[in-house]
Amino acid sequence: MATRFHITATDGKARTGILHTARGAIRTPAFMPVGTAGTVKAMLPGNVRATGADIILGNTYHLMLRPGAERVARLGGLHRFMNWDGPILTDSGGFQVMSLAALRRLSEEGVRFRSHVDGSEHMLTPERSIEVQRLLGADISMCFDECPALPAPRARIEESMRLSMRWAERSRAAFGDPADRALFGIQQGGLEPDLRRESAAALRAIGFDGYAIGGLAVGEGQAAMFAMLDEAPGMLPEDRPRYLMGVGKPDDILGAVMRGVDMFDCVLPTRSGRTGQALTRRGAVNIKNARHADDPRPLDPDCACPCCTGYSRAYLHHVFKAGEIISAMLLTWHNLHYYQELMAGIRAAIAAGALTEFAAGFHARRAEGDLPPL
Amino acid sequence: MATRFHITATDGKARTGILHTARGAIRTPAFMPVGTAGTVKAMLPGNVRATGADIILGNTYHLMLRPGAERVARLGGLHRFMNWDGPILTDSGGFQVMSLAALRRLSEEGVRFRSHVDGSEHMLTPERSIEVQRLLGADISMCFDECPALPAPRARIEESMRLSMRWAERSRAAFGDPADRALFGIQQGGLEPDLRRESAAALRAIGFDGYAIGGLAVGEGQAAMFAMLDEAPGMLPEDRPRYLMGVGKPDDILGAVMRGVDMFDCVLPTRSGRTGQALTRRGAVNIKNARHADDPRPLDPDCACPCCTGYSRAYLHHVFKAGEIISAMLLTWHNLHYYQELMAGIRAAIAAGALTEFAAGFHARRAEGDLPPL
Repeated sequence: MATRFHITATDGKARTGILHTARGAIRTPAFMPVGTAGTVKAMLPGNVRATGADIILGNTYHLMLRPGAERVARLGGLHRFMNWDGPILTDSGGFQVMSLAALRRLSEEGVRFRSHVDGSEHMLTPERSIEVQRLLGADISMCFDECPALPAPRARIEESMRLSMRWAERSRAAFGDPADRALFGIQQGGLEPDLRRESAAALRAIGFDGYAIGGLAVGEGQAAMFAMLDEAPGMLPEDRPRYLMGVGKPDDILGAVMRGVDMFDCVLPTRSGRTGQALTRRGAVNIKNARHADDPRPLDPDCACPCCTGYSRAYLHHVFKAGEIISAMLLTWHNLHYYQELMAGIRAAIAAGALTEFAAGFHARRAEGDLPPL
Repeated sequence: MATRFHITATDGKARTGILHTARGAIRTPAFMPVGTAGTVKAMLPGNVRATGADIILGNTYHLMLRPGAERVARLGGLHRFMNWDGPILTDSGGFQVMSLAALRRLSEEGVRFRSHVDGSEHMLTPERSIEVQRLLGADISMCFDECPALPAPRARIEESMRLSMRWAERSRAAFGDPADRALFGIQQGGLEPDLRRESAAALRAIGFDGYAIGGLAVGEGQAAMFAMLDEAPGMLPEDRPRYLMGVGKPDDILGAVMRGVDMFDCVLPTRSGRTGQALTRRGAVNIKNARHADDPRPLDPDCACPCCTGYSRAYLHHVFKAGEIISAMLLTWHNLHYYQELMAGIRAAIAAGALTEFAAGFHARRAEGDLPPL
């Protein structure tokens, strides 16, 4: 195995530990900021690290189309290209190709599609996805998979899951056994427990460094997702990291950790940073709102990030309204800082056996809501 | 006088020294990055400082319209608002109101206009301009003036200059004698030496902390500007800083320093940073150009800025093409770093009595042009 995962404490189903990779240790539960096209949007890599991130995610689909995986490889790999020397996890392109590309044709072989960037034709297969991820230099690669949006008919979910399991076997074969890189399988099966069990059994039979839970947070709502997460993590090996893909909001993450999940990624903190939404321990703050125009207080008086220690809500409101780039820079920094602080709080609470109390405090602060009007 | 200006060395007409303000010392010759609407675009203030900037410029016209001068004052002034604790120079709004506002009506009293932001009606007079600059908390304020684009008929330039001199007197009266803030007069007169002399005499009779040369770099070309600068600085007091407004390209700045100018501001390094143009000691580099797509070399191998030490031309090309915010962040940082490094080189050369040799080296490197193709 190319990674070692040490669970250092548990609290109920929640676990905290360290996932060791060739490029450094990842403290779990971990949140991975998304660096889609070779940049965590509006952030310099050193500042991403400063928020407390141990690992970032890169998108195979975007990077293979622009600037191209072979080009990135010639330039020394994605780490050097984007100036991030910590671990990188790349997705397989499977989810993005089905949501972003044009003229998709799905077959047993893979997906043929046209680029949303320039209309050029491409084919993604398990073998090509693994090759692209190797060219990028991913520390953790993902199996090529396919998943339907929910709700979907059971037959569609079953067929899709079985195709993904055949692709998982081909991904594993294409990956080989490199000493310094890891491959994660992806459980599918929608909201059908028996399909989730079948998928988990197929993945365990193949054997992976870690196991992702795919096909959730695709429209089913938090209650349905949590109901599935009451069962899905337990179907996966106890001694390997479990990664819930594309999740999520802070309360999604906390709820998933309490159900046994170790890793997360989501565009929410970065995307919200560009659309004027700040995520705080008191919930979301829409900085566009006119009530912030004269407010000398920071977003969150208890936050130690550069945005909250240096700038008022009035300033953040002004630069957002004026369309200034610093708006995205400051709000993204704050949001990523808040996410990493949340993860650090979760890890400490698990280590102290106090995750239930931590969760109670988390929900109580959010129930209080945003700062009172001035 | 609210500022003290110590000239520490001269080399020909060029001078180097320190302009002391209540918020810190400004090493001259100085380049002031432009922070139009309360932000040096795509930069955090601490990083502007890290490039070597001692002072930044704020735009009265933009800030009075959005977020509003009274609002900034209530929030503790522009320094606190934008998180910059060094000196700030504000322009008077005169130039911007004539170039950006709608439905302008110029009279002896001032300029009535409609905001380009929301169409609201405003009046800028010398008194209101000085009041706005006081509300913003400027360390250096500028007289309210008016200037025609060049070429213009002599009669128009003469009339405009005399109006600006009457406004300079009203600006001086409105400013009073605060202990901790300075007021600069602005010489006008287009390319007419006798009008420039008349303007300089009028300003000297009023008495200012510093003297700006206005109404150049407005379409006349470098040769005509340099011809005027062979005379204009010498018309202004020897012992006060001379500020050439809105200039300019690196070779404009060097040429103006050699003619006796001490201070500069220009949007070129920041604006170019957002449009994919890097300014280097070898001249301008258009990062959009496809020849950079596979180039592993930095913009400038001899530059120590975070952009050049961390990123390849291939990366900069990619993120520009992909529309990523980091493109503006990195190129702006590089451009401002280059400008401050140029100013530091100029100051050191004057101190060493070697400005002629410095200028020869500057022009020789630019004549070599950009890095050779790979």
